[in-house]
Amino acid sequence: MTAVVRPGRATSLQGLFAPRSIALVGATDKSGWSLSTYQNLLGHGFTGPVHLVNPRTPEVHGRKAHKSLTAIGEPVDLAYVMVPTPAVLDVLSEGAELGIRNYVVLTAGFGETGTEGRRREEELHAFVREKGLNVLGPNGNGYVNAAAGITPYGLAITQPPPAGPVGVVLQSGALASAVLNFMHARNVGLSMLTSMGNEMSLSVTDVIDHLVDDPATEVIALFLETVRHPEEFARVARRAAEAGKPIVALKIGASRLASRTAQAHTGALVGDDRVVDAAFRRLGVLRVHSLEELILTAGLLARTGPLPGGRIGVVTPSGGACEIIADRAEQEGLEIPPFAPGTTARLKEAVPDFATVQNPLDVTGYVLVDRTLLARALETVAADPGIDVVLALVDLPRVPPADPEAARAYFGAFAECIRKTDKPVVVSGNVLTDITETGRRLQEETGFPYIAGGIDHAMNALGAAVRWSRSLPDVLREELSAPAPADVTPGRPGETWAEHRAARLLAEHGVPVVPSVRTADEHEAVAAAERLGYPVVLKAAADGLQHKSDIGGVRLGLAGPDAVRSAFRDVRAALQSSGYGADPAVLVQPQRTGGTELLVGVVRDPTWGLTLAVGLGGVWVEVLADSALRLLPVTHADVRSALGELRGARLLDGARGTEPADLDAVAEVVVRIGELAGSLGPRLESLEVNPLWVRGARVEALDALVTWA
Amino acid sequence: MTAVVRPGRATSLQGLFAPRSIALVGATDKSGWSLSTYQNLLGHGFTGPVHLVNPRTPEVHGRKAHKSLTAIGEPVDLAYVMVPTPAVLDVLSEGAELGIRNYVVLTAGFGETGTEGRRREEELHAFVREKGLNVLGPNGNGYVNAAAGITPYGLAITQPPPAGPVGVVLQSGALASAVLNFMHARNVGLSMLTSMGNEMSLSVTDVIDHLVDDPATEVIALFLETVRHPEEFARVARRAAEAGKPIVALKIGASRLASRTAQAHTGALVGDDRVVDAAFRRLGVLRVHSLEELILTAGLLARTGPLPGGRIGVVTPSGGACEIIADRAEQEGLEIPPFAPGTTARLKEAVPDFATVQNPLDVTGYVLVDRTLLARALETVAADPGIDVVLALVDLPRVPPADPEAARAYFGAFAECIRKTDKPVVVSGNVLTDITETGRRLQEETGFPYIAGGIDHAMNALGAAVRWSRSLPDVLREELSAPAPADVTPGRPGETWAEHRAARLLAEHGVPVVPSVRTADEHEAVAAAERLGYPVVLKAAADGLQHKSDIGGVRLGLAGPDAVRSAFRDVRAALQSSGYGADPAVLVQPQRTGGTELLVGVVRDPTWGLTLAVGLGGVWVEVLADSALRLLPVTHADVRSALGELRGARLLDGARGTEPADLDAVAEVVVRIGELAGSLGPRLESLEVNPLWVRGARVEALDALVTWA
Repeated sequence: MTAVVRPGRATSLQGLFAPRSIALVGATDKSGWSLSTYQNLLGHGFTGPVHLVNPRTPEVHGRKAHKSLTAIGEPVDLAYVMVPTPAVLDVLSEGAELGIRNYVVLTAGFGETGTEGRRREEELHAFVREKGLNVLGPNGNGYVNAAAGITPYGLAITQPPPAGPVGVVLQSGALASAVLNFMHARNVGLSMLTSMGNEMSLSVTDVIDHLVDDPATEVIALFLETVRHPEEFARVARRAAEAGKPIVALKIGASRLASRTAQAHTGALVGDDRVVDAAFRRLGVLRVHSLEELILTAGLLARTGPLPGGRIGVVTPSGGACEIIADRAEQEGLEIPPFAPGTTARLKEAVPDFATVQNPLDVTGYVLVDRTLLARALETVAADPGIDVVLALVDLPRVPPADPEAARAYFGAFAECIRKTDKPVVVSGNVLTDITETGRRLQEETGFPYIAGGIDHAMNALGAAVRWSRSLPDVLREELSAPAPADVTPGRPGETWAEHRAARLLAEHGVPVVPSVRTADEHEAVAAAERLGYPVVLKAAADGLQHKSDIGGVRLGLAGPDAVRSAFRDVRAALQSSGYGADPAVLVQPQRTGGTELLVGVVRDPTWGLTLAVGLGGVWVEVLADSALRLLPVTHADVRSALGELRGARLLDGARGTEPADLDAVAEVVVRIGELAGSLGPRLESLEVNPLWVRGARVEALDALVTWA
Repeated sequence: MTAVVRPGRATSLQGLFAPRSIALVGATDKSGWSLSTYQNLLGHGFTGPVHLVNPRTPEVHGRKAHKSLTAIGEPVDLAYVMVPTPAVLDVLSEGAELGIRNYVVLTAGFGETGTEGRRREEELHAFVREKGLNVLGPNGNGYVNAAAGITPYGLAITQPPPAGPVGVVLQSGALASAVLNFMHARNVGLSMLTSMGNEMSLSVTDVIDHLVDDPATEVIALFLETVRHPEEFARVARRAAEAGKPIVALKIGASRLASRTAQAHTGALVGDDRVVDAAFRRLGVLRVHSLEELILTAGLLARTGPLPGGRIGVVTPSGGACEIIADRAEQEGLEIPPFAPGTTARLKEAVPDFATVQNPLDVTGYVLVDRTLLARALETVAADPGIDVVLALVDLPRVPPADPEAARAYFGAFAECIRKTDKPVVVSGNVLTDITETGRRLQEETGFPYIAGGIDHAMNALGAAVRWSRSLPDVLREELSAPAPADVTPGRPGETWAEHRAARLLAEHGVPVVPSVRTADEHEAVAAAERLGYPVVLKAAADGLQHKSDIGGVRLGLAGPDAVRSAFRDVRAALQSSGYGADPAVLVQPQRTGGTELLVGVVRDPTWGLTLAVGLGGVWVEVLADSALRLLPVTHADVRSALGELRGARLLDGARGTEPADLDAVAEVVVRIGELAGSLGPRLESLEVNPLWVRGARVEALDALVTWA
């Protein structure tokens, strides 16, 4: 029996996250955590019984304490455990005996503290698995179920965010307070926040799974230090996309990966933070880069859902704001198209004579005189057939207005106008300040919509929302089946196959490879050259030889038999003097000229598995690291989009007078390389084709290396 | 006599910005602007007399109104003018007659509204110049002198920021309220905010000049739509740097420039937003990209002043925060070095056993138990000799704490500990929320320092502050004198000099140029080739011919006399068939091989003048637009730093096996090209050396074009 029943256990965390009765085990007046948890439960809406358990004190927090879980004598749905570390297992044993299935373990001193702690955690985990318990933690503060008003949570919640559509899962306890405060400050509605702790049993993916099924949750926001279960993560991300619930994630540790990679020298791509980008892209997870972006992007998506497009109509009372918005739109890849002629004509009637009618629209400071101006302009812009989304710049008052009735009427009418439009309307303030009590009350009283941040964060969130909306069809496409295992006898673990063996493997699996003749003496070499046609290339070939050029084992541009003979002698000598005398073959190949050289590599990322990199070869990849990554398996379209991301992409279009590359032909070969890598499965460590030569529709691997796991 | 006496009129705006008496001309109960201005003056500390002037109403805002400025019968230092547009000139005439020198003109309907408005503004400006008046506006809301409590400002100030060190100048009226609100929300101290309006007479640079001399102002924050007087701007920026007052600027319009450039096709660099970057870099102006960054960067610099370096010691109670900080530090170019062994040893004694002692430091959630932990850790880190700046993560309480006395003691002790350190300490919160009344009061009562934002903005501001500090010596270096005008007869306006004339100009001014022989027939060409040595290059030369390659006018790699003869015939034929038969010369040059090719261009930016671009030639500049810009004149060090910015910089270090370029030799030639361009002065439109060939210490212009203005 396992604690976490993977597929289909959609409601199995119901008891954990929606208990009807809670016991605080280890409750004590001496602990701030205990007091906070108790006060949170009492102060934020929990209506069921809260039992305090302490074997040594008859009274805790001014109320009777029970000696043990057993002594409660009533059913308990959830035990919140904050006893000393050595006592945790005993509490769970007693609870399991009583039929209590759900636990939050606040107690620390487990896996996070070293060898002895790890041993304790393993022992606890074994018990939890055996009994099929749901355990959040240990070393976690619990959760805040704002939708249901259930808050078994160990830190004071001084300003609870409103109940609402955003579910938050955090792999950091200390940042939870900051997130709760920020959601309150920006009036972003919370369904549930979970502080994961050590993820001994329940992990981030289990909670995401729960939130996908949770009717109160429309968007899921993650703070991730690490993705522990990448396959599970992929599964729940797909479920979220299918449910139309965006996942937004702040995934940190780029600098840590960078330093680890720098130390480990295991290849520039392994552990590259860009693999995380590639994985999230594949899974439709929006990656953000600050806590503010995390919450504001989630808040915006909760308001809009998927957006129909990226053509934004902008309505503001400020020219300066218009220019900031235009600059930011460009950075976010959003379009601010000219208005349709009809829209322009109607706007000209609506705005003052001295206003310039254009998108973005500045209706001018005349809004202070004509209080319906902005709303009327918004209505007109929303009716423009060339506009997908309207962005309106409105600041809520921060202090009680002189005439509260007038303010209510103004914002009420504005809210009504927004409700009436059939386009998504995003409202942004100018700068990122709190929504104050005054603003909050106005929003409640008038239904004035969510304010997506200051201009900077609102544009960021809008850009992210459009990207997510556009990516949905691709994320939801049918999953590619993994290729069948190839019928290949792999090399020894850690062995590298140089060109002469790697090329054969490629050719056998449908990847076009430059013709190559393995020769053992000058006569064979010249005969091969005559057959292939001059000019030819000679290359050293020997098992274990990876970097032919470094030993002088490559000779280019050989135009006749004399050149071939002389080059053969040189290459052979280079092999012998470098210790490859045992198997000193020389490859003869026709020299390919013109066209463009690509690099196509597949490496194994420790978290995400086989990852494809495409780049422009030679100087581009060596000096610029100009490459694009995709998780395997890849489609033709994946490869096309990856090629399009390259800084030097224009080179493939013939920017330098070379023959334009047939990108479909390239993509076909790259897909085949990806399939071969996939079919080699766990046996493969890395596979690199460098260069993959392209000229028009001709695509050939000119060299390759395969390393076995 | 001019209204704005340029150099040395340091205190001439004293009467405008620190008047002892103010008249509101055109005051009326019917205008919200009038009421706001009046209430602002009364409510925010102005102690002098405020006279209301309205010719048609005996009473305004519940007080006696005067019929005219004359009727006041008392001295007036500043007239705030909000009469109808046609009456503005009359008011200024009357005021000038009375000896009133200072005006804020709120009234709109001038240059911003079209031809008639522009005429009115010119008429007004002529009068203002004639009488030597200081006029802010028209079409501007005035200013908020928070330091002196003088607020002749036309919009309601509902939450005034505290008086403090940041001076703000805005080329946008509507954004001023957002800036004031944000400064209040983040508790950033304001010296003076000025809303510029149309800048008819007084411009942004005049106000900056004033703020440089203003003892209340330590940092200057700008919102710029356009730089009207670039030379003035350069002068005041230099004065600010000399006074140790950083200028931070949000300069918008990148998207506008981009679209204008796209339409105008006047060259990829003219009007490029990157020229603004180059100019600001030269002037030591920190460019930011959002209103939040503007104020938070200014706020941080006001607290720290110039920083001694970029080695940051980080102290937090949160592992998650540590990783966000590490990621952001990397992006900002900040270093988080390991602690010195002594620091590590002392920290190990201070923090709980289960904490990991490293930089960034997570002292753990144990801060909730041991309330001195964070401050003690900070003290230890500040004493580390390898640390320049300490960053501490602290959130102020947002609601009144349960035990206010304990909170005061805690923050007081922490503030004292920070005061005692001799290193700069920057305090950051987790997320960007308002400093609430509770936090504000704690700061006031305990002297707890300025909080630089949430992590994201604090890291951004810290990175900017370190960059500014590092740039100071360079900004303050002796100004390069403009080169003496060259003794050159320029071409006709718009004329382009192709290689054969441009190269001569370069050579005459000390720029090394590849040897070149102008030949008129095959025999001359072969003779030249023999003299220069094979292989040679043949190039078409004719006045007006700019793109030789396009007509087939370039032949490379000619290895002997036959090849030269045949190439000569081809090039000559190409000239003739392209309509250049009148002057059909052919240049013979030795072919340069190996090494690297650069592009060095000088173009005239409409605002900032001659701008130097360096880039790697060929594909790099064509496909990647890989170039770095500097305003002329440039030093050797400027060119070295520009070369270092190129994405392909490693190519110059011999990354591809080519001979490393002698960067000093390259810089010397580029400086000389810059000097030549400078000495051609306003006659020059553009000058381009492409390629500039570099191999080791050999540097030669292989081709060039000069276009005259």
